[in-house]
Amino acid sequence: MANSAPIITLLTDFGLRDHFVAAMKGVMLSVNPDIKFVDISNLVPPQDIFTGAFTLSKAWSYFPPGTIHLAIIDPGVGAARKALVVSAGAHYFVAPDNGILTYVFDEHPSFEAYEITADHYYRKPVSATFHGRDVFAPIAAWISRGIPLHQLGVELRDPFRLQLPALQRVKDTLIQGQILAVDQFGNLITNLKPSDVPRPFKILAGHREIAIVRKTYSEGAPGEVFVVPGSTGFLEIAVKDGSAASVLNIKTGSPVGAIFL
Amino acid sequence: MANSAPIITLLTDFGLRDHFVAAMKGVMLSVNPDIKFVDISNLVPPQDIFTGAFTLSKAWSYFPPGTIHLAIIDPGVGAARKALVVSAGAHYFVAPDNGILTYVFDEHPSFEAYEITADHYYRKPVSATFHGRDVFAPIAAWISRGIPLHQLGVELRDPFRLQLPALQRVKDTLIQGQILAVDQFGNLITNLKPSDVPRPFKILAGHREIAIVRKTYSEGAPGEVFVVPGSTGFLEIAVKDGSAASVLNIKTGSPVGAIFL
Amino acid sequence: MANSAPIITLLTDFGLRDHFVAAMKGVMLSVNPDIKFVDISNLVPPQDIFTGAFTLSKAWSYFPPGTIHLAIIDPGVGAARKALVVSAGAHYFVAPDNGILTYVFDEHPSFEAYEITADHYYRKPVSATFHGRDVFAPIAAWISRGIPLHQLGVELRDPFRLQLPALQRVKDTLIQGQILAVDQFGNLITNLKPSDVPRPFKILAGHREIAIVRKTYSEGAPGEVFVVPGSTGFLEIAVKDGSAASVLNIKTGSPVGAIFL
Repeated sequence: MANSAPIITLLTDFGLRDHFVAAMKGVMLSVNPDIKFVDISNLVPPQDIFTGAFTLSKAWSYFPPGTIHLAIIDPGVGAARKALVVSAGAHYFVAPDNGILTYVFDEHPSFEAYEITADHYYRKPVSATFHGRDVFAPIAAWISRGIPLHQLGVELRDPFRLQLPALQRVKDTLIQGQILAVDQFGNLITNLKPSDVPRPFKILAGHREIAIVRKTYSEGAPGEVFVVPGSTGFLEIAVKDGSAASVLNIKTGSPVGAIFL
Repeated sequence: MANSAPIITLLTDFGLRDHFVAAMKGVMLSVNPDIKFVDISNLVPPQDIFTGAFTLSKAWSYFPPGTIHLAIIDPGVGAARKALVVSAGAHYFVAPDNGILTYVFDEHPSFEAYEITADHYYRKPVSATFHGRDVFAPIAAWISRGIPLHQLGVELRDPFRLQLPALQRVKDTLIQGQILAVDQFGNLITNLKPSDVPRPFKILAGHREIAIVRKTYSEGAPGEVFVVPGSTGFLEIAVKDGSAASVLNIKTGSPVGAIFL
Repeated sequence: MANSAPIITLLTDFGLRDHFVAAMKGVMLSVNPDIKFVDISNLVPPQDIFTGAFTLSKAWSYFPPGTIHLAIIDPGVGAARKALVVSAGAHYFVAPDNGILTYVFDEHPSFEAYEITADHYYRKPVSATFHGRDVFAPIAAWISRGIPLHQLGVELRDPFRLQLPALQRVKDTLIQGQILAVDQFGNLITNLKPSDVPRPFKILAGHREIAIVRKTYSEGAPGEVFVVPGSTGFLEIAVKDGSAASVLNIKTGSPVGAIFL
């Protein structure tokens, strides 16, 4: 495996219509033509740092050690926000210092972070509005060529973190949580883990009480609303042969409750 | 060419917003970092096995022999449906046993199919709701490393097949067919082949009689509705500079007739 | 770098749902399995040659010399339009002769263009409606294997060019331009360059006068409409935390004016 091509993943809100993602890939291939790209998502809603952080957190750790993850959701481009390179869990991350790596930091507290300062690696001239192309992409490509992170900047002890949605134990019989994400199928991913509900429970969401728990999406009757332990490690609300987001009319950020029976 | 990277194509209904496709690619690269991925489509309508089967059937055979096709539209994930590895036409296929490979089986009757049982190759723990990541992706990656199919499961004589839309010869002068697909441009792909209409004919579709036959999309007058032999081998209904699907207000599954004049 | 894989980029209006793009990639890999693909965009609006030309112009030059750019927006497929291979700026281009390479020709006047005639390289039979798969893809793949352009066709002195939107100096104090593109974020890319407005100015667009000029998207007050020098080299109209296209209700092709104060 020593000779395998370096892998760079991309997570952006740049969409798939415009030239943005391709310009970044071109810049990277011009630094290192051996890079293998994998797009995690370029369809993160514009400037939605939390959704980007969540999507990244559910994808990056499946890649081989040494993978470089380029995560560019950057509403503060050109302004005071710092630019980061990070080593965590044997992977590398290149991103603006705006919280998009919050899950990475929380799950790998021994991470190392550097504020990028080595501007001789940038593509020149540096546009004030597209650091993805001119700063972050070339830095990621140079990491793939073996430049150690400490040569790219100065250590940063306390990168910016988002306040992640936390569970609140309202009383002994009630936990309040929220919807973290709505997936392609309309399944609602909560921030409740199976271990948070060790006793019989029902879920409150969108003016409904949901007491049915299933093991898979295909169990139950058509149209039935149920809870299922999802593949991200969280409980999900799903509808057999339908979209729970449509049926319950709720979305990312909506509150959910777990009541113990 | 002996040393070329193994190719794995992906066909799913997972969409491009979420982490699903990237998680599968990460799992595969962790088994074999030399894989080259080509996405056939990740935008198959959710749980639409027929559209997935059709799309796959129009793409896979253009790839080099030895290509591995991972086709995950899997509404029955975690339930009783089997998991398949298939060899057909010098290509490999990894998919749930739900009919998504029907065209492959029909066009290559000497296929070999195995029900996947070699769970030591799975990613653990296996989620009940995302076998794409935990079962199918690692199996595809191990095939790319040269594991023979017979070591992955037990032979399966009669995999599940969809009932494909067939032509009906209603009378000597009338064949009834249907719309198989609507493409990006709104062209309506029928299940009629040029060889099915050896005599002068007109097409009935969406309350219209279409008697004009063109060789290309660009012939004729703006707004004209016509029939054209399409690149998939089927007759298509098209509109010059427009969308036939919009103009005729019909869609996948709608009936079409061919009347001989 | 001599042994790096050849790079082929794709720019099409084929969308991401259907089999079209994958069929082209399969055909290319069957000619040369070592190709590395980068999609520039497959979501160019159907048959919108100008938007394709603009998107290509903002991406291709970031790739390494020797990259092959396959640009297939081809409303005239199967009719009289010619098929082109082009060498310009140390890159290669394969495209229909319909103006999609206009920016390339304008920016690299010493380009060499050939009308493709070497039909022994085509995939047979050649569909009249999908030259992307049967003509352009195999030609691009054979270029990646080192076939020189002059062996693929006959030199063409005067390929077709679009009339690109030009600035009009209406009077000493007024330049009239237009919107070239609307990006993923709703930013409006004009055809005015910073060098076109060397004196204090305001922009007229969508019944608004815009006098504020910012350096980045994040400056200013929420909802503010302003002008910003964009990363494509053109002035853009942007809205802080919003979509300028929605706020101004204008789109590609809409007029803009620059008035000197």
